[in-house]
Amino acid sequence: MGGPGLCCLASSGDRPVLYASGQSILIARLVVHRARDTTRLASIERSHISHFFCQVAEAALATQLKPHQEKSNFIIKTPKGTRDLSPEQMVVREKILDMVVSCFKRHGAKGLDTPAFELKEMLTEKYGEDSGLVYDLKDQGGELLSLRYDLTVPFARYLAMNKVKKMKRYHVGKVWRRESPTIAQGRYREFCQCDFDIAGQFDPMIPDAECLKIMCEILSGLQLGDFLIKVNDRRILDGIFAVCGVPESKFHAICSSVDKLDKMSWKDVRHEMVAKKGLAAEVADRIWDYVQCHGGVSLVQQMFQDPRLSQNKQALEGLGDLKLLFEYLTLFGIAEKISFDLSLARGLDYYTGVIYEAVLLQTPAHAEEEPRNVGSVAAGGRYDGLVGMFDPKGHNVPCVGLSIGVERIFSIVEQRMKTFGEKIRTTETQVFVATPQKNFLQERLKLIAELWDAGIKAELMYKNNPKLLTQLHYCENTGIPLVVIIGEQELKEGVIKLRSVANREEVAITRENLVAEIQKRLSES
Amino acid sequence: MGGPGLCCLASSGDRPVLYASGQSILIARLVVHRARDTTRLASIERSHISHFFCQVAEAALATQLKPHQEKSNFIIKTPKGTRDLSPEQMVVREKILDMVVSCFKRHGAKGLDTPAFELKEMLTEKYGEDSGLVYDLKDQGGELLSLRYDLTVPFARYLAMNKVKKMKRYHVGKVWRRESPTIAQGRYREFCQCDFDIAGQFDPMIPDAECLKIMCEILSGLQLGDFLIKVNDRRILDGIFAVCGVPESKFHAICSSVDKLDKMSWKDVRHEMVAKKGLAAEVADRIWDYVQCHGGVSLVQQMFQDPRLSQNKQALEGLGDLKLLFEYLTLFGIAEKISFDLSLARGLDYYTGVIYEAVLLQTPAHAEEEPRNVGSVAAGGRYDGLVGMFDPKGHNVPCVGLSIGVERIFSIVEQRMKTFGEKIRTTETQVFVATPQKNFLQERLKLIAELWDAGIKAELMYKNNPKLLTQLHYCENTGIPLVVIIGEQELKEGVIKLRSVANREEVAITRENLVAEIQKRLSES
Repeated sequence: MGGPGLCCLASSGDRPVLYASGQSILIARLVVHRARDTTRLASIERSHISHFFCQVAEAALATQLKPHQEKSNFIIKTPKGTRDLSPEQMVVREKILDMVVSCFKRHGAKGLDTPAFELKEMLTEKYGEDSGLVYDLKDQGGELLSLRYDLTVPFARYLAMNKVKKMKRYHVGKVWRRESPTIAQGRYREFCQCDFDIAGQFDPMIPDAECLKIMCEILSGLQLGDFLIKVNDRRILDGIFAVCGVPESKFHAICSSVDKLDKMSWKDVRHEMVAKKGLAAEVADRIWDYVQCHGGVSLVQQMFQDPRLSQNKQALEGLGDLKLLFEYLTLFGIAEKISFDLSLARGLDYYTGVIYEAVLLQTPAHAEEEPRNVGSVAAGGRYDGLVGMFDPKGHNVPCVGLSIGVERIFSIVEQRMKTFGEKIRTTETQVFVATPQKNFLQERLKLIAELWDAGIKAELMYKNNPKLLTQLHYCENTGIPLVVIIGEQELKEGVIKLRSVANREEVAITRENLVAEIQKRLSES
Repeated sequence: MGGPGLCCLASSGDRPVLYASGQSILIARLVVHRARDTTRLASIERSHISHFFCQVAEAALATQLKPHQEKSNFIIKTPKGTRDLSPEQMVVREKILDMVVSCFKRHGAKGLDTPAFELKEMLTEKYGEDSGLVYDLKDQGGELLSLRYDLTVPFARYLAMNKVKKMKRYHVGKVWRRESPTIAQGRYREFCQCDFDIAGQFDPMIPDAECLKIMCEILSGLQLGDFLIKVNDRRILDGIFAVCGVPESKFHAICSSVDKLDKMSWKDVRHEMVAKKGLAAEVADRIWDYVQCHGGVSLVQQMFQDPRLSQNKQALEGLGDLKLLFEYLTLFGIAEKISFDLSLARGLDYYTGVIYEAVLLQTPAHAEEEPRNVGSVAAGGRYDGLVGMFDPKGHNVPCVGLSIGVERIFSIVEQRMKTFGEKIRTTETQVFVATPQKNFLQERLKLIAELWDAGIKAELMYKNNPKLLTQLHYCENTGIPLVVIIGEQELKEGVIKLRSVANREEVAITRENLVAEIQKRLSES
C-alpha cells in the first residue's frame, strides 16, 4: 500500500478505511479531531502541509461531516497479520504453554532468552528463499537491526558468542515474518514459538530421538487427536538430487521446491523446477519417483537396496542414521507415530541431517475418507553447521532441535472449547467483599486488605454505595466462589457473613476466624 | 556510528571491533570466511563491490591474517542496549515474574497480550519529549510500524478498538526504547515491563489506592529492602505552574524539566527552564519554592492553606483527591510508605491526575548517613484522556495503572544472590538414568521413557558407553537428587538400583515398583 507519503482511500471488507503513511494520517486525524469545531479548521497551519496532504485531510473531513460515517475514517487496528490476545485467549495460551514448558523441563532443558531483534547481519544467509520475509528496523542511526525470524539462529549466535559447547535449552518467544497472512489458517506475521534444542557432540541419534519423543509427548498431552511425524534427512535428499542429476549448485533451490509439495501439486512444483529453476524435465521426473515414497522402517531398508541411491555416500550416511533413529524410537514406544517421507524437505537452509515435521490427522467425517492432513504443528531437525557460521574460527557445535507451532494449536484448542461450549474463567478471584448497606466502603477496604495480605485473591466494587444484587450478580457471572458480606449488624456483632455463591448458603463467622475459614474452604474445593 | 554504508574500525573496551553497516560487513565476512583459502579471494566478484567496501574488506582480511587477532574482526554480539538472559538469569526472572503476576491475579486482573509493534500513528503524540526514542520499523512496503514503547498505549488502543468500558488487566511483556543505555544502572533498550491497570468510571481514588497497595505488596514480597512511594498529581503541578506564572503552552515542557530533578541539580534544571524553554527566572524560582516540598498527609492540608495554590481550581481538585487517597491508604495500612512529593512529575505526556513512583531506599553503610535513593522500581498514575485519543468519537475511559520496572529488580536480586553465594539450579531434573556397564543404551532408553511417561523429570547421558563416575559427577554438579542405575546384574534380577545423591545410599527396587518409589521419594522431599 505504498511507501512514505503515499496515501489512498481503500476499502477493507465492508467499511471504507483510510490507508496512509504516518504524516498524512496525522494531519487527517488533526482535521477529524477538530471536525466538531469546524471554525477551528482555518487555524491549521497550511504552510506546513503540502497541497497533497491538504486534499487528503479535506477528503477525510468531508466524509467525517456525514455523521453516520463518522467512525469509518479512523484506522484503529493492530498491524496486518497481528492480533491482540483477549483474556479468554490468554487463558488458553497459558494452559498450552505451561504444558509445553513442563515437558521441556521434564527433559532437563534450561531456559534462555534473547533480544527480539538481532544485528541484521546475524540473520543474513540463514533462511534461503525466505530471507525476504525478515522484518528490518529503520536505520535511525547506529546498528542495522532485524526482528528475529526464528529462535534457532539466535540460539546458535548465543552458543558461538559465549563459546558454549554443550547445552539443552528451551525458549518460548515471539518471532516475526512478513508473510502474506492467511489468518484463517492460523498463520500470523507475529507468532509464538516454543523451541527445544540440544547442542553438543554426542553419539549419533540419541538427542534426535529425544526430540521426536518430546514432540509425541506434547502432541499426545494436548489431546489434539491423531498425529503423524514425517521424518527425512537432508543428506538423503541431497543424495537423491545427486543421483537424479541435479547440479550441486541447485541443491538448495530444488530442495525449496520439494518443500512446497505439501501446498502445491507435483505439476506446479515440477513447473517451478523446470521453468523457473532451469532443471531438465527428466531430472525433475526422476526426483518425483523418489519423493512419492513414504513408509516405516522397511522403507529405510528398501532405500538401502536402491541401485542408484546406494551408490551415494551422503545418502547412505543419512539412511544409516535413520535406521538407528527408528531403533531408538521403538525403544521409546513411538515408532508407529513416525513416517519416513522422502518428500519432506523443510524450508530453512540451515538443516544438515535428520528433519521432521508433525502433522495432525483430521478424523474423517465419513469412514471411507482418508485421514486429512490439517497442517504442520511442530517441526525441527539437525543443523550441525549453523554455530560455525557465527564462530570466528568456524568451530562448529552440532545441534538438533524442534519447534512447536503453538499458534495453530491455540486455534484448534480454542475452536474445540467453543464447540463444547466450555466457559473460561479469565480471573482467579476467590472471594468478593460485599456490603448490603451504604457508607461501608471503609470497612470493605480494611477487610479486603486483610484478605490480600493473607494471599487470598479478592475483589470489591469500586463504588461507595454499590447495590448488593449487583455485587452478587458479578460473582455469579465471573465464577467467584465465595462472598464475604459486611453490614451494620455484622459490624455490631463482630462477625462477617460468608456466602457460598454456588448454593447461596450463608454462615456468620467471627472476624478473627475469617481468613482461616476462607483458606479452609478454598483448600477443600 | 553512522548510517548505511558507513563503517570504521573502532575500539570497544580492550578489543578492537569492526563497526559497519550490513552490506559492508557481509562483504568483510565473506572475505574473512574464505581467508583460510586465500587463493579463492580472487573469486569474489569485485564488480559488485564498491571500491570503498573493497578497502574495508581488505583491511579486515589484513588483520585476519595475523592469527592472534583472528577473533577480533568478528562482531558477534547482541544489539546495543540489549542482552541475552542466561539460564541462571532466567531462573531469577521467572521467580520474580511469578511473584508479580500472582499479585496481579490476587487483585482480580485478567491477562492480555498485544503485538510487539503498533501502527506508527498509534504511538505519535503520546510520549512528549521521549517520542524520539521510539524504534520504527523499516518501510518494506505496507503499513508504517513502530515497536511498542510501553504497554499502556497499546492497552488504551485495545480498549478503544474493542469499545471496552471497564477492565482490570495485567500485561507482562517487552518494550523497546532507543535510550543511551547505561547498562550499569540496569537500563536497557529492550526491557520487560509488568503492568496492571484498571479502566472504567468508578468512584474517586478507590482503584488508585489499590494500585498503590499492589506496588507495596510486590515490593515487600520481593524483599528488596525499605522503599518509599512518592505521590503527586498532575493537576497540582499544573496549578503550581499556573500560580507561578508559567504560560499554559509551556506546561508540558516545564513538567518535563521538573521530571529531571531526580537526576539533575536544581541549578541545571533551572537553566533548562530559563535558557532553553524561555521561562522567566523569577517564575522558575517560584516553582522551586513549591517542588522542594515533600511530606505526608499533613502537607496536603498545608497546601490547601497555601494562599496562591488554594486559588487554583485544578490544584484544589488534585489536593482533594490526594486527601481521599491518603484516607484509603491508611485503611490499607500503607500510608507510612507514601510521601506526597511536589517534585514528582513523571515523564510521559498522558497522565492527567494522580502520579506515583516507588524508590528503594538503600540501607546506609554508616548510621549517620541518610538513606540513599537507588532509583525508581515501579511507577504509574491516572490517564483519563488516553483512550479518547484513539476513539473516533473521542469517548474516554478513565484509567489508572502501574508498571513494575523488573529489570532493575532483576539486577538487585541477582546481585544479592551473588553476594550470598546462592547456587541456582537451572534445571528441575529429578532423576538421572545411569549405567556402570557398556552396551546398556537400549535399557537406559526404555527405562527413561517409562519415567518421562510417568511425568518424572529425567535425564541420561547421550553416549553409548558413558563412565559411571562421569554420570554421578554430573548429578552432583547439577543438583539432581536421585539416580537410577541399571547394569547386567540388575537386569538379570529384575531390579533397579535407586541412589540418593545427597547421602550416596543405594537400594534395590523391583522394576515394577520403581516409578511409585521415585514418586514417593520426590513427594517427601
